[in-house]
Amino acid sequence: MERAQVIGTGRVGSAVAARLRERGWELDRPDPALVVLCVPDRAIPEVAAGVPAGPWVTHTSGATPLAALDPHVRRFGLHPLQTFALDRGPEQLDGALAAVSAESEDALATGFELARTLGLVPFELDDAHRAAYHAGAAIASNYLVTLRRAAGSLLEAAGAPPEGLDLLMRRTIDNGFKLTGAIERGDRETVTRHLAAIGAERPELDAMYRVLAELTASQQAALEVQPA
Amino acid sequence: MERAQVIGTGRVGSAVAARLRERGWELDRPDPALVVLCVPDRAIPEVAAGVPAGPWVTHTSGATPLAALDPHVRRFGLHPLQTFALDRGPEQLDGALAAVSAESEDALATGFELARTLGLVPFELDDAHRAAYHAGAAIASNYLVTLRRAAGSLLEAAGAPPEGLDLLMRRTIDNGFKLTGAIERGDRETVTRHLAAIGAERPELDAMYRVLAELTASQQAALEVQPA
Repeated sequence: MERAQVIGTGRVGSAVAARLRERGWELDRPDPALVVLCVPDRAIPEVAAGVPAGPWVTHTSGATPLAALDPHVRRFGLHPLQTFALDRGPEQLDGALAAVSAESEDALATGFELARTLGLVPFELDDAHRAAYHAGAAIASNYLVTLRRAAGSLLEAAGAPPEGLDLLMRRTIDNGFKLTGAIERGDRETVTRHLAAIGAERPELDAMYRVLAELTASQQAALEVQPA
Repeated sequence: MERAQVIGTGRVGSAVAARLRERGWELDRPDPALVVLCVPDRAIPEVAAGVPAGPWVTHTSGATPLAALDPHVRRFGLHPLQTFALDRGPEQLDGALAAVSAESEDALATGFELARTLGLVPFELDDAHRAAYHAGAAIASNYLVTLRRAAGSLLEAAGAPPEGLDLLMRRTIDNGFKLTGAIERGDRETVTRHLAAIGAERPELDAMYRVLAELTASQQAALEVQPA
């Protein structure tokens, strides 16, 4: 390959194009061997339909099935399991996993090769499982933002500095996501205190707190049933 | 001070005792100037009642009010905004915030001094606001574990490696908790795909996904209304 067209100049498209250029690929020349669609999910079918047949065609969407690339048959999906910012560069790709979905050995090998060129660590993902995979990725990334905003608003309500949460969250990851705290200890009294405070200060967080308390307890119970 | 008794040998008590020893404090000698209760929240009143009057008495609980230290009046609360592991040492305290609650200038100054001795960065927290503060800390730390477990179980269901989520979550923090993804884009179709996949693979996560989707959208709408 080494001659590609990257369509889309958003967060993912910018990082992908910059990385390919770093690797010496020629972009935006006639007759590319590969077209990478880094466009919003809903735009993929229309943009794909407008790409002349011939090159490999891939999209970088997590949840979108390969059928969205019709009528192309030399195709695969390549989703970096990462979140991107416009003010960062191609180093954002380094070491992240990449879900590659394909319908032939040839397409899978091409997807793996492109992933490695981008600095990603590829794994194969069944096209039929993309939505479950992507739901997991969205929960881990997007709802992490939601948790931080919710937690920060409670600290603000208490007159405490929300940015103190960042070190706590990093350490929770460093400690291998080991559960500590009231639910782990079976301490219902503290949970009751939390709910009273949320009801008084941030009632819009009540449903979230309750759903997560219940899920946390059931996950923990399931873990404790398993043999060590 | 420099002569203290630390009661409790759990995650917090071990780190606090080790740090005080590092700083040259004498522990477990008669007539301590300070008694630090690092015991489960519900045990605080009973343990405090058993401490002879005289020394400063503090607990390291997040949500427990100072009244739990009755009948002591030379008292304060010092809660490290951090999660602790038994297989780590006092370095876990370094740079974390510490919520100090007190009822007099003297007690507040003593709490701040102890926090700094421990390597913590103290801030004052109104005793009446401890529960809201601690609910926020619990959401940020404990429910982060819950999210990772939930997301990981969806990746497992899809045949994808859950550990790939860790880099994604760290980067989400590095990027300042900026929201990306389907809800940020107003992409209802992807949300619908996620819900269908969750219903098929992990129905126990449906309520959590929906509550967080709604909260995420309303947080984002509130942010977009604010002037830049």
